[in-house]
Amino acid sequence: MPASLDNAAASLLARYKAVRNATATLCRPLSPEDMMVQSCPEASPVKWHLAHTSWFFETFVLSEFLAGYTPFHPDFRWLFNSYYNSLGEMPEKKLRSSFSRPPLDLILSYRASVDAGIERLLQHTVEDEAARRIALGIEHEQQHQELIATDVKHALFTNPLHPPYIEDASPAQGTTIAPPLEWIDFSPGLTEIGLTPDPNAIDCFAFDNETPRHPVYIAPYRLASRLVTCAEYLAFLDQNGYNRPELWLSEGWTAIRSEGWQAPLYWQRDSETKSGWSIYTLHGLIPLEDLSETPVCHLSFFEADAYARWTGYRLPTEFEWEYAAREAAPGARSNLLDTGSLHPTPAGHLSGLQQIFGDVWEWTASPYTGYPGYAPLPGALGEYNGKFMSSQMVLRGGSCVTPASHIRATYRNFFSPATRWQFSGLRLAR
Amino acid sequence: MPASLDNAAASLLARYKAVRNATATLCRPLSPEDMMVQSCPEASPVKWHLAHTSWFFETFVLSEFLAGYTPFHPDFRWLFNSYYNSLGEMPEKKLRSSFSRPPLDLILSYRASVDAGIERLLQHTVEDEAARRIALGIEHEQQHQELIATDVKHALFTNPLHPPYIEDASPAQGTTIAPPLEWIDFSPGLTEIGLTPDPNAIDCFAFDNETPRHPVYIAPYRLASRLVTCAEYLAFLDQNGYNRPELWLSEGWTAIRSEGWQAPLYWQRDSETKSGWSIYTLHGLIPLEDLSETPVCHLSFFEADAYARWTGYRLPTEFEWEYAAREAAPGARSNLLDTGSLHPTPAGHLSGLQQIFGDVWEWTASPYTGYPGYAPLPGALGEYNGKFMSSQMVLRGGSCVTPASHIRATYRNFFSPATRWQFSGLRLAR
Amino acid sequence: MPASLDNAAASLLARYKAVRNATATLCRPLSPEDMMVQSCPEASPVKWHLAHTSWFFETFVLSEFLAGYTPFHPDFRWLFNSYYNSLGEMPEKKLRSSFSRPPLDLILSYRASVDAGIERLLQHTVEDEAARRIALGIEHEQQHQELIATDVKHALFTNPLHPPYIEDASPAQGTTIAPPLEWIDFSPGLTEIGLTPDPNAIDCFAFDNETPRHPVYIAPYRLASRLVTCAEYLAFLDQNGYNRPELWLSEGWTAIRSEGWQAPLYWQRDSETKSGWSIYTLHGLIPLEDLSETPVCHLSFFEADAYARWTGYRLPTEFEWEYAAREAAPGARSNLLDTGSLHPTPAGHLSGLQQIFGDVWEWTASPYTGYPGYAPLPGALGEYNGKFMSSQMVLRGGSCVTPASHIRATYRNFFSPATRWQFSGLRLAR
Amino acid sequence: MPASLDNAAASLLARYKAVRNATATLCRPLSPEDMMVQSCPEASPVKWHLAHTSWFFETFVLSEFLAGYTPFHPDFRWLFNSYYNSLGEMPEKKLRSSFSRPPLDLILSYRASVDAGIERLLQHTVEDEAARRIALGIEHEQQHQELIATDVKHALFTNPLHPPYIEDASPAQGTTIAPPLEWIDFSPGLTEIGLTPDPNAIDCFAFDNETPRHPVYIAPYRLASRLVTCAEYLAFLDQNGYNRPELWLSEGWTAIRSEGWQAPLYWQRDSETKSGWSIYTLHGLIPLEDLSETPVCHLSFFEADAYARWTGYRLPTEFEWEYAAREAAPGARSNLLDTGSLHPTPAGHLSGLQQIFGDVWEWTASPYTGYPGYAPLPGALGEYNGKFMSSQMVLRGGSCVTPASHIRATYRNFFSPATRWQFSGLRLAR
Repeated sequence: MPASLDNAAASLLARYKAVRNATATLCRPLSPEDMMVQSCPEASPVKWHLAHTSWFFETFVLSEFLAGYTPFHPDFRWLFNSYYNSLGEMPEKKLRSSFSRPPLDLILSYRASVDAGIERLLQHTVEDEAARRIALGIEHEQQHQELIATDVKHALFTNPLHPPYIEDASPAQGTTIAPPLEWIDFSPGLTEIGLTPDPNAIDCFAFDNETPRHPVYIAPYRLASRLVTCAEYLAFLDQNGYNRPELWLSEGWTAIRSEGWQAPLYWQRDSETKSGWSIYTLHGLIPLEDLSETPVCHLSFFEADAYARWTGYRLPTEFEWEYAAREAAPGARSNLLDTGSLHPTPAGHLSGLQQIFGDVWEWTASPYTGYPGYAPLPGALGEYNGKFMSSQMVLRGGSCVTPASHIRATYRNFFSPATRWQFSGLRLAR
Repeated sequence: MPASLDNAAASLLARYKAVRNATATLCRPLSPEDMMVQSCPEASPVKWHLAHTSWFFETFVLSEFLAGYTPFHPDFRWLFNSYYNSLGEMPEKKLRSSFSRPPLDLILSYRASVDAGIERLLQHTVEDEAARRIALGIEHEQQHQELIATDVKHALFTNPLHPPYIEDASPAQGTTIAPPLEWIDFSPGLTEIGLTPDPNAIDCFAFDNETPRHPVYIAPYRLASRLVTCAEYLAFLDQNGYNRPELWLSEGWTAIRSEGWQAPLYWQRDSETKSGWSIYTLHGLIPLEDLSETPVCHLSFFEADAYARWTGYRLPTEFEWEYAAREAAPGARSNLLDTGSLHPTPAGHLSGLQQIFGDVWEWTASPYTGYPGYAPLPGALGEYNGKFMSSQMVLRGGSCVTPASHIRATYRNFFSPATRWQFSGLRLAR
Repeated sequence: MPASLDNAAASLLARYKAVRNATATLCRPLSPEDMMVQSCPEASPVKWHLAHTSWFFETFVLSEFLAGYTPFHPDFRWLFNSYYNSLGEMPEKKLRSSFSRPPLDLILSYRASVDAGIERLLQHTVEDEAARRIALGIEHEQQHQELIATDVKHALFTNPLHPPYIEDASPAQGTTIAPPLEWIDFSPGLTEIGLTPDPNAIDCFAFDNETPRHPVYIAPYRLASRLVTCAEYLAFLDQNGYNRPELWLSEGWTAIRSEGWQAPLYWQRDSETKSGWSIYTLHGLIPLEDLSETPVCHLSFFEADAYARWTGYRLPTEFEWEYAAREAAPGARSNLLDTGSLHPTPAGHLSGLQQIFGDVWEWTASPYTGYPGYAPLPGALGEYNGKFMSSQMVLRGGSCVTPASHIRATYRNFFSPATRWQFSGLRLAR
Repeated sequence: MPASLDNAAASLLARYKAVRNATATLCRPLSPEDMMVQSCPEASPVKWHLAHTSWFFETFVLSEFLAGYTPFHPDFRWLFNSYYNSLGEMPEKKLRSSFSRPPLDLILSYRASVDAGIERLLQHTVEDEAARRIALGIEHEQQHQELIATDVKHALFTNPLHPPYIEDASPAQGTTIAPPLEWIDFSPGLTEIGLTPDPNAIDCFAFDNETPRHPVYIAPYRLASRLVTCAEYLAFLDQNGYNRPELWLSEGWTAIRSEGWQAPLYWQRDSETKSGWSIYTLHGLIPLEDLSETPVCHLSFFEADAYARWTGYRLPTEFEWEYAAREAAPGARSNLLDTGSLHPTPAGHLSGLQQIFGDVWEWTASPYTGYPGYAPLPGALGEYNGKFMSSQMVLRGGSCVTPASHIRATYRNFFSPATRWQFSGLRLAR
């Protein structure tokens, strides 16, 4: 590395390389055939993720900021556009499963070529906007790492053989007993939610939907010390929870009727286990007994909400969650992608709030909208977050397949309330 | 009326009779055949509305509080249940169009019989809960008056002949020019939203979703002095607004593509008018020219939101709206159902906020959720509002088919963001 | 009637009046509200049938052959067009349920006006084409009589109250035992199928799809002496017939799975009857026990075919059926609309073929296609039959709601193989 | 090869090997990724075809006739079952696109293992039923060769890049002008259709749906000497054929409206060509000009039928076709899979019937039903053909992707009338 290299650029490049490598590591257990599968409308083939994340850097960074850059392939600009209408036409999402060509080899060359471009660009100090875009691209790549893990899980489960993603790894199962649920008190008052990035602090990243920081009044509330477990959720099933309309939002009741849901996604009836259920994980099918103390996962908002109503409690708002998490940060105990567990694990026997970061995304009671004064990024990047602000609910805290350096207390994830393919669960509030 | 009659009961009875009569008045132009039509999934046949509003009083009042009451017909209890799962099975909504039997005559007898029951009950002081239920039933009946007007409009428009509801009435059209749009300033601060009913004040009605009153912090904002007009909205059309994806929420863009929307509901291409459009009203088809200064109506949330984005402004939140309206009340100038205009009318040339109540429901930027500490009513009545708190947006202010005594500043209406069959429009904020 | 009146015209007029009166008789038990219901995609409201049959005479006869005729209403020409694209645009079929206007009274005036026109036209000898069109219109009206009975049955059944069409009539039920099934032998050979109408014989009517008469070779076969009964079909149910894929055509298996069919249309589970079933008829719900010897009815082709396969036999081809029926004619014993039974009745204890005409339409193994040399009528009337010659199966023999003067041995009815709303059953062949 | 080897067995083995090799040859241009794509409900991934054809031999031959045979993999028996309900549950068809595991390598081992088993079995004389099953399996494999070519074409076309299957091959395009269409006369009479296989002649194969041979009376008719060309079909387009309802069957009109069809499948609007159209072929996109004399291809029955009606002629029945073809046989001039052209080619300038075998499957006017006396094969193999005998039309003659040794005059192909993904076109009759 040349001595002339700027420190900020060097640090950005190091982070870039680390994150790009992490994507490659995630794909190691997959064959080119595995990377073709697209098993539900939410998902994309892994090969597409590999191409699209490179497309993002090429389109928003290299094409604009690297002098003399020639696009890797003339068709890729529209072929691997996901949803940026401002950039022109793109293929329908469902067609991605037909992308046998370009072959994986060419996509890997594409990645290498983009990597070389970014490296060239970061040999020298870059202008702020380029650096901001690269930082955004890195976060974007991390989001797609989570999507890869999520989509692969669904793809392999859809295969009638239910093959595991990792054959020999031992899962996050065991004899640990989750600690008793405790209630943590929070006082009422006016607080500040979200953050307004310091334009001079390039490493303090936030998505536009986390901004601006703004005052919110919060009434007194209590938050459960840990996530709801499979054993607790099984009691809801056993008490006929899926057949009692008074526990469900009207839209949720319609959804579980029309979809025929009687349990979380990935729970399978299994006459050979004690509970009658096994759960598909990235390590294969595991009897529910062996996972009963782990956080329940792959719930829709409707299921999380109905469970909470059944207990007599409720889901927290996203403000309540953020207020409680404001002083926490992902730590060594946080079960995020970097632990390699690839499945939620039981809470520890500690005092205070547990499992705030990692394990499962926590459904909140808050619909996804813009904060007061919210303004999307200018240009095509304005389509990144803002145009999805309807009919979705906010989730907080990251999951066991979220990269550790990607999550923070102000981070807002969002999905339609019927979505279950994410690693999503819940924490109770009252 | 016997001297022994309690004042509160007497006043409740008077209000009951007035509201029930208003329903009958609304149906006067309709034949039994008209009352059979159910032309979209949101709508019900008018005959069903007549029965269901009576069912509400019978089920929640007479059966519980009138000693010795015998239900009018053994089947009606399940036949005219709308969506109260706690009360048992009910027919699918779409089957209501097959209710040729019971005939209208029998439904009218049912109404008369329920009326007699309520009158009997209110001969004497009634217990508080009965009075509260009757008050709720009155508000419920008023909601169905609005639904009758709305459903009839859709039914008659669906008929390829597009017959008017009122043949000879002159519509709210004319040469009035809407005043220029002005911006009203509001200061930031903590305010109180919603209301907590005084348990002793029987005549201060509120739905559970307006409660409890709670503090909300509001940032500084400005509100438009009047509603957006047809002429203003036409400019959005003429500037290709329906074909520019960057103006739309992603879900909205999908909706207008799949539905083929290129204008508000009830706007029809018409080669003979200057603008090329006519608008169907309860008075029949009217050239857009004659309605250009009236508030634009029958927009989905997506269209209201896209229009606002196109102007560079935005929709207000429901809190901003309520804060601005908190000292207003429906008045003689308010274009509500009682005026008989049955269509939005132009704003007057006055200073300050215009058209807060009546004309059109105003889409807000707020998803419909429970207020902090919200608790649904106990029992089956808890299904009235609470179970719809997902994937809907709040509308405020009432419309030209809302009864005047039914609306207030804290009132929250709510519909799915793709809904257009309501009299719904918008006011800008910034 | 003036002395100058031509015999043929007089006889045509008499037939016209009789058939038009029969329609009115059929509608007598129905209210204007009943005549609004359209309860499935196959059906139309009765009011529409009344208008459309008049439209047919107005469009194809009066407008072309009655000098100086002015259409009753300028909109009716397109409003009551069913499916004749050659005549221009028409409303979508499903919109017919919104035709509360024109009111029934106006439709009845329309009928009277058309009747007066036809009467005026037939005061004198008319040209051959006019006479042919009137004859076609009469047959058309008779088809709609059957449709009225069929649609009303579905409409009243769809009403959750299941009201009967005729309250007090006693149904075709009883203690009669159906005779044992016998097999009638037929010899192989070349025969003539269909008929070529004699252009000079105005009273020998045939639809274009019955023409031309043409040679067909028929292999030796045997035909069951009577129709399959409810008791026989119940055995198929009890032997798990609806859950054995090997008995079903692939398309039929898909249909019964996706529709959830486990019995014929109008069979309802009923815990209080011996067999566990009741059957809805135009006389209301009747325990299966009381109808067990009557022909099974409201089967799709798929169910008729699966039943036949289960018995080891098969459905006859339409040629085998016509060959067997060629010397028969509807008689006093035929259970057609004119008997007023409105439901299939048990076969008599007689020798030879029974129940050839009436009771139920008999599904055949023959797809509906044009005969060799088939040519549709010229002009818009060519759309009457020919354009439906794909993906439908032929049914023969008429049903208990077919007018007696409408049916004959060469008559071909046709429906999609999944259709069950018709009075359709089966006879076995081998 | 041991001297003891029976001649019939040896000849069967030689044929087996040749056909299995032909499948491998067909797959040579495809990557494992290409073999994953399933781009429409009719299609399957190529990898699945490779597995399923082996499954057929394993299930119906090796498991029953090879002593001591152990299935290659315990899951394959249900995993690669296509539609044989008698053999138990199987995965839904659409799940086949998730079969990234087993990997292609394992499928190829499966093929090799089944090949070894068949070779072992055929070392000695086998019993008749085993030989018949192997012969059936060979024909089955050939059907799947056609499906592979057909499915790959659709898969590559669905890819927005439209890559060719064969990059460098020159297509069947050129300057040849198709000869003028001539009419060949056929006399009326009783003829024999189909064939009854000689149980002793093992090499005279026929599917059960071609049997039994039976008499049919045929009226006089004329058949076009060659297939309809792209140039001729383009005239139909240019004359607005897709927008004239009177040319279409009702079901066809609905289909083209709801699907938005305005041209055959694989025709693409192309502003740079003279005609405004290019056609996608297995050799990539080619201007229509260069293919104008080739037979039009990838039509639904509805389009073939509408085109014929527009010309004033009609489609032949399958009997007319077979009667004309009865003395023909696939020859050196027949454009079948073995020529490697992979696209229809222009007719030659010869007298008599041209293009009877190969080029395109010819839609006939005949719905697909069983011949008189038809009996499916016993057991699970009875599901091969018989259960599809509803709502489908017969096609005759094979296409440019049908193996030459697979087709014959009595061969009946069948598809739903809306199917266009096959190489299907038409020949006129009158």
